[in-house]
Amino acid sequence: MRKVFVIGIGVGNPDYVTVQAINALNEVDVFFVMDKGREKEDLVRLRKEICERYIKDKSYRTIETIDPPRDRTASSYEPAVRAWHEQRAGIYERLIGQELGENECGAFLVWGDPSLYDGTLRIIDRIIERGTVAFEYQVIPGISAIQALAAKHKIALNRIGRSIHITTGRKLAEGLPNNIDDVIVMLDADCAFKAIDNTGIDIYWGAYIGTEDEILVAGSLRERMHDIARMRAQAKGRKGWIMDTYLLRRSKQQ
Amino acid sequence: MRKVFVIGIGVGNPDYVTVQAINALNEVDVFFVMDKGREKEDLVRLRKEICERYIKDKSYRTIETIDPPRDRTASSYEPAVRAWHEQRAGIYERLIGQELGENECGAFLVWGDPSLYDGTLRIIDRIIERGTVAFEYQVIPGISAIQALAAKHKIALNRIGRSIHITTGRKLAEGLPNNIDDVIVMLDADCAFKAIDNTGIDIYWGAYIGTEDEILVAGSLRERMHDIARMRAQAKGRKGWIMDTYLLRRSKQQ
Repeated sequence: MRKVFVIGIGVGNPDYVTVQAINALNEVDVFFVMDKGREKEDLVRLRKEICERYIKDKSYRTIETIDPPRDRTASSYEPAVRAWHEQRAGIYERLIGQELGENECGAFLVWGDPSLYDGTLRIIDRIIERGTVAFEYQVIPGISAIQALAAKHKIALNRIGRSIHITTGRKLAEGLPNNIDDVIVMLDADCAFKAIDNTGIDIYWGAYIGTEDEILVAGSLRERMHDIARMRAQAKGRKGWIMDTYLLRRSKQQ
Repeated sequence: MRKVFVIGIGVGNPDYVTVQAINALNEVDVFFVMDKGREKEDLVRLRKEICERYIKDKSYRTIETIDPPRDRTASSYEPAVRAWHEQRAGIYERLIGQELGENECGAFLVWGDPSLYDGTLRIIDRIIERGTVAFEYQVIPGISAIQALAAKHKIALNRIGRSIHITTGRKLAEGLPNNIDDVIVMLDADCAFKAIDNTGIDIYWGAYIGTEDEILVAGSLRERMHDIARMRAQAKGRKGWIMDTYLLRRSKQQ
């Protein structure tokens, strides 16, 4: 039986990799890599470093394919992402069926954790629904950007007995949710934090967390938001890509 | 300078430990362990297994203290937890000041991730505010129960472009939040899922995740909630403790 691993490899720091992920890496015959274009040299290097550092006495192949572009002009986000996942499911299905021998093991490496804002599991589900290629698969959790952010700022994400909300920049642009004091934001390319009511809100922001380029900023959202937007634009311009995330916390209550 | 690590060691499976955590474990002179009473033999064994398996060529001491009981009769949850943290801060402060030599390294091991529903970081902050003992500290993220749950059920926690809500059993008892389709619940000793409006809700539940006692249940909340409550009570009765968590997902939308 073919086997596929979806392996969370953490973010930035190769030390975030778990023993479970290392054991899985050492079973893999074929790594499937989607060249995302935006995933620039640094990330390719980091992924190679993880494989070279942790895989012992095992030969493996790496198969790179071009990621189909997502329609970023579509008026509606979700159907566009769905169509994109469908395209990728076709590609992954072909990779698993044609590039993986009957008893071989393939793997998709996921930055952070496969359960958080990553499409790989959804794509695997689609391939299984199509039913044209048989394989078993296993999911391996990894340290998410959110956890790395909290660890670097040395903060808990929740207040005592309270809830936490995890959302996207796109959703945040509609406004901070009511009655929720701690909001974690991912996938915010447009600095949505600049447009919300920032009264009594603190921000804990981080980019390239765990890498040598790490930037951390914490403080009053009103006072720091323009600094963060500027630093973000500069860093992105310099490196060609950015991975960042942040926590918004109502500072009135504790 | 004294150094203190707060190390997330993941949940259940020792393979969830990260390379960063292993490196930190190997620097530790003194492990501070709070005997929680409820943390029964299995958990003590698991923690010992992690130390024995990953610490090489390093001698270390383990100092156990009795965790002060939290006032569970208090009418208000948050002040009771605050008072309890204050007591623990006094104990931790004494441990760091008296049991740790000037250039030694101490550690608190945290199940799961220190940023999620764990009081250790808040207690460390209190000790620093008191200012009676000087030390530097570092936080090391770990695989949380939530991530292990998602990996075992092979699901993403979010739907495309949507938000995720993380809350407690106590909060859930007030009802499912509006307009949120994916709610993760922790610290639910009273099966609050039985009392909410369960129309069109699926549950992904797991207990003792990553251990040999692992139990996973997924399906319609209405159809499975009594099974889960029964299994939970039986398992807790048999083992004397339980760690469980679950995702509630509105099944109508996908």
